[in-house]
Amino acid sequence: MRALVYHGPGQSSWDTVPDPVIEDATDAIVRVDATTVCGSDLRILRGDLPEVKPGTVLGHEAVGEVVEAGPGVHHLRPGNQVIVSAVSACGHCRECRDTTFGQCGAGGGWLLGNEIHGTQAELVRVPFADHSVHRRPQNVPPEEAVLLCELLPTAYEVGVRNGHVGPGDTVVVVGAGPVGIASVIIARLYSPRRVVLVDLSTARLRTAARLGSDAAELPGRMIAELSEGPGADVVIEASGEPDGFVLGTRVVRTGGHIAIIGVHGGPATLHLESLWRKNVTISTGQVDTSSTPWLLGLVQYGDLPVSGLVTDTFPLDRTEDAYETFARGATTGALKVLLRR
Amino acid sequence: MRALVYHGPGQSSWDTVPDPVIEDATDAIVRVDATTVCGSDLRILRGDLPEVKPGTVLGHEAVGEVVEAGPGVHHLRPGNQVIVSAVSACGHCRECRDTTFGQCGAGGGWLLGNEIHGTQAELVRVPFADHSVHRRPQNVPPEEAVLLCELLPTAYEVGVRNGHVGPGDTVVVVGAGPVGIASVIIARLYSPRRVVLVDLSTARLRTAARLGSDAAELPGRMIAELSEGPGADVVIEASGEPDGFVLGTRVVRTGGHIAIIGVHGGPATLHLESLWRKNVTISTGQVDTSSTPWLLGLVQYGDLPVSGLVTDTFPLDRTEDAYETFARGATTGALKVLLRR
Amino acid sequence: MRALVYHGPGQSSWDTVPDPVIEDATDAIVRVDATTVCGSDLRILRGDLPEVKPGTVLGHEAVGEVVEAGPGVHHLRPGNQVIVSAVSACGHCRECRDTTFGQCGAGGGWLLGNEIHGTQAELVRVPFADHSVHRRPQNVPPEEAVLLCELLPTAYEVGVRNGHVGPGDTVVVVGAGPVGIASVIIARLYSPRRVVLVDLSTARLRTAARLGSDAAELPGRMIAELSEGPGADVVIEASGEPDGFVLGTRVVRTGGHIAIIGVHGGPATLHLESLWRKNVTISTGQVDTSSTPWLLGLVQYGDLPVSGLVTDTFPLDRTEDAYETFARGATTGALKVLLRR
Amino acid sequence: MRALVYHGPGQSSWDTVPDPVIEDATDAIVRVDATTVCGSDLRILRGDLPEVKPGTVLGHEAVGEVVEAGPGVHHLRPGNQVIVSAVSACGHCRECRDTTFGQCGAGGGWLLGNEIHGTQAELVRVPFADHSVHRRPQNVPPEEAVLLCELLPTAYEVGVRNGHVGPGDTVVVVGAGPVGIASVIIARLYSPRRVVLVDLSTARLRTAARLGSDAAELPGRMIAELSEGPGADVVIEASGEPDGFVLGTRVVRTGGHIAIIGVHGGPATLHLESLWRKNVTISTGQVDTSSTPWLLGLVQYGDLPVSGLVTDTFPLDRTEDAYETFARGATTGALKVLLRR
Repeated sequence: MRALVYHGPGQSSWDTVPDPVIEDATDAIVRVDATTVCGSDLRILRGDLPEVKPGTVLGHEAVGEVVEAGPGVHHLRPGNQVIVSAVSACGHCRECRDTTFGQCGAGGGWLLGNEIHGTQAELVRVPFADHSVHRRPQNVPPEEAVLLCELLPTAYEVGVRNGHVGPGDTVVVVGAGPVGIASVIIARLYSPRRVVLVDLSTARLRTAARLGSDAAELPGRMIAELSEGPGADVVIEASGEPDGFVLGTRVVRTGGHIAIIGVHGGPATLHLESLWRKNVTISTGQVDTSSTPWLLGLVQYGDLPVSGLVTDTFPLDRTEDAYETFARGATTGALKVLLRR
Repeated sequence: MRALVYHGPGQSSWDTVPDPVIEDATDAIVRVDATTVCGSDLRILRGDLPEVKPGTVLGHEAVGEVVEAGPGVHHLRPGNQVIVSAVSACGHCRECRDTTFGQCGAGGGWLLGNEIHGTQAELVRVPFADHSVHRRPQNVPPEEAVLLCELLPTAYEVGVRNGHVGPGDTVVVVGAGPVGIASVIIARLYSPRRVVLVDLSTARLRTAARLGSDAAELPGRMIAELSEGPGADVVIEASGEPDGFVLGTRVVRTGGHIAIIGVHGGPATLHLESLWRKNVTISTGQVDTSSTPWLLGLVQYGDLPVSGLVTDTFPLDRTEDAYETFARGATTGALKVLLRR
Repeated sequence: MRALVYHGPGQSSWDTVPDPVIEDATDAIVRVDATTVCGSDLRILRGDLPEVKPGTVLGHEAVGEVVEAGPGVHHLRPGNQVIVSAVSACGHCRECRDTTFGQCGAGGGWLLGNEIHGTQAELVRVPFADHSVHRRPQNVPPEEAVLLCELLPTAYEVGVRNGHVGPGDTVVVVGAGPVGIASVIIARLYSPRRVVLVDLSTARLRTAARLGSDAAELPGRMIAELSEGPGADVVIEASGEPDGFVLGTRVVRTGGHIAIIGVHGGPATLHLESLWRKNVTISTGQVDTSSTPWLLGLVQYGDLPVSGLVTDTFPLDRTEDAYETFARGATTGALKVLLRR
Repeated sequence: MRALVYHGPGQSSWDTVPDPVIEDATDAIVRVDATTVCGSDLRILRGDLPEVKPGTVLGHEAVGEVVEAGPGVHHLRPGNQVIVSAVSACGHCRECRDTTFGQCGAGGGWLLGNEIHGTQAELVRVPFADHSVHRRPQNVPPEEAVLLCELLPTAYEVGVRNGHVGPGDTVVVVGAGPVGIASVIIARLYSPRRVVLVDLSTARLRTAARLGSDAAELPGRMIAELSEGPGADVVIEASGEPDGFVLGTRVVRTGGHIAIIGVHGGPATLHLESLWRKNVTISTGQVDTSSTPWLLGLVQYGDLPVSGLVTDTFPLDRTEDAYETFARGATTGALKVLLRR
């Protein structure tokens, strides 16, 4: 088959590689009909995740059709239309019994495009398939279903839920990339009064305004306004930058929440000299995808308007062009870039 | 009357000052029968809280008898034996209606020994008396009652409750001062498996072991043990030191809680490069004393063995000796220092 | 002044009575600019609440202007535009410190139009005024503000919050009176998938459909549909009828919530033979009005479309006509009946 | 093999039956080293659960050794010492992903000794073995481990957790059978002030007093005391009797919780005429056994003193004598009756 192979920092190519085969009884092989590019794929290419070995097929999001299921797979059979979760989990270990699937203690977690071959390929082997794959309802098209692999669960679980968004709240989202804007859309379910996006990219802020954020401001004005008043009830830090985090701690109100959703590559400064008496809660997290069935229901019944998150579409064999487009998102306003079979 | 007056950094003396009088209808005047010294009193003396003006009577903890009550006070009358809360609150503003009394929006909060004259004196004026004073049951002696002014509510609300201590947990308390050890005692109510104290002072660790901590170790061994295993379910940071916080982030388990109870004078480093995927919750807070009636019930009915927290007693007019003893606690093992009329 | 006086079961009249005066230092006198009739007023008139003594002025909802404030009132002065809460509370007792103002242990609770003279009058004395009165923002007109006295807090606290309504939920509201329909409007803040009203009155169901319920069905069809599927995530019982409650227990899903908001005059049957293994939670409650400031903010900023709840308006001196209209709501579709000065 | 076979209401015998075999890939066969008798076994024998077919081997609690594991079982192999959960669950369906294993939507739930052959036998087939069996640590003896099959998870999840027991609480447990007394022991982890047991059997109350209940009273005195005061913070209804439930609703305080743990065979009266304004929460539930690993840790580390719950021991082939002893528990004070290989 053909697949996007990582060859070390800065290097990848659309290569011919062997087809995946069932290795464990609980594996399934899925034909990829749609996949997408995530910010962490760019980080791998930059060499920021040295644990990813050259030769690995990239990608951890996929929608497609089951072509083969191992003998230990009970809930799936060939022909099923499915959504492949970015998190593969056994479902039985102590961590999985506590629904922290991302921390699976039996060899699961974020495997695809990280520890094993990923989804930017014609076929993908999915471990623990019964627990790591969701049936795709007919009325959820692939271009929306692919958002359920990782983007929407991350925005909900790590951002909106950890941040405790509620009716009447002022929510500040730092970072107008796909996960930041997905957080805005999901936060709307809880009727916040204002959802303000902060980013240095005016192109992305324009996209954000179109997709439902109330204000999409440059940091300067944002700080001025909120620092003088009571501040934000909830801050969702989706920039992955130390300065983004510090900005969040400055605008949060006493008693507010800061939910860190960004992948951070270095330390940040925690201004405890002012925060110690502010009664704030700061949370971090990697997605568990425990909310996927519920979010899928919301998309299926039209409760969550996510179609605008996909801004560009390419055929699967033009994966390299898709990376190029996605990487320049801050300039072009591109959000999720879809790859279709 | 006589009172301990702050005269600027490093300077205080036991002076004769005018008796306090009712200034607002909701004030009460309380005769101080017992008071104590808090770590934040030492910080004021060191000049760390420049908002405290020279001339202020120090202290924010007191047990005594009501000698006069303003016309707007409904729940108290002269002769009542009372516990004066470190937090004075109106009870009616939006913050108070949400039980965040420490953030009272109508002029309350931490006033005593900070914005107005405090409790290390023969008499003290207590604003918002109906809301800021609790009747002392006969069977709770002053030396235990005085712990309810601030120490126990802080250890519970900001430490144990924010940290979500539960049965079977491993709890690490960083800092073996009074609030750290009070946190150990209160955490015991929830049947944690182990409560481990970390401090650089061997004298205080010895006291801690006597008062119920399972292990009272120096930082080195602690880190080695917990960093290799799953880590601590709960960390209570009660040292107020940047290194104490960083230690806490190293020993906490994935999914654990870090409750910051210490008063910090400067920033700390937040290692987001490792914490972003650890699903931790970090909380800060200043006490609201909303839990005081409940804690008082626990002490009254013998459910909370707090008597060992007071290690030294002085007559009220030897307040300066009491400060000296308390300030050397790391060497001598002294915890709370009681001043009796 | 003129006021609606209760003269025993079935009897009331618009009489001349003495003006109220300040009795306690914390009282305020409010000139009534708008009031309304509540279902519990009808119950009093029917003789269902024998503790209400003949001679009592009826009514517990009012919007108006402070004309006098006792010396112990700090947050109000004559001329303030205010919303009078149906619950009067001291703010300082143990129950009030826990925000259960409706259970005030110092002589508060539901006093107006029940234990003391009420609001269907030209003037009303409000006890514990600092805690029991809210400033009315200029842009919240009296006809919306009066809904905050009791209706909206009840629908939120006892119905929507106790019922844990969330995104994607199916919510069944039993009883299409004012509090049932207010529950529908507030539940919408949490993006439920469907909110289904059940009532025997087709007139009220028509009003309900106009105000935002997805389906307004007669009991028969409702039961058939939900009993066959997984059932309702949340049932809000707002009928006050034993059959309404039993209906709720039949349509709730395993793991669901039943929030009882109705005032019940007799026992109901709890079918534990089927419910014991259904993991349901059943809650009861009387409003605390702890949520009033938050709800007021939602109304003020346009987050809660409540204007349709008032269907009829009368001048204050035609209170008896207003009762007549309200009592025939099941026939006419009338919901809240406003009385204006 | 030999097994206790149900032959219809009132009839059972220790028969020779075919050995169980692996039927599904995820099955395991376990050799029973210890089992016990549950109150629901008595109900089956009485004919109260007509869905149990004659010919079924009874029992749903077992500790033993894995003798065979199907090809789809990954976490177990022959020779493993295990605890068999009363709930068999797939671990992957929507209900299981929400940790409501007792409601497994893929054919799991309470199967053993109910829908399929049970554990009162020399061998038992366990479906969904990876999810439904727990490894037994060496230092947890079979006579304690068997309590983790169902008794302790039920007492915790349905009783103590649903009842929200906390420090300082007054807890009333209605029904001094094994699950009632297990609730007392687990409630102690949260430092309630008093745990009062109510039962008509003085023999069982004597056992209860020995195992840690503060007061073990007949209903009459109990009602008198609590009805006059503020009442119980938590009621755990473990009698399964309508009168037990009504008693609970009379003694619960305003704002308290009633956790129904008993298996009820008929309706009870819900006195909404007094409860509607009492702000109570009533919960029902069937155990999910989601807490089993945590409870096992508590037993393993000595945090939960459960050894006194087993009062009688018989060899496995005297199962009928064991039933006889257990059935007369109200007279003899017997609690759990252990059957050993």
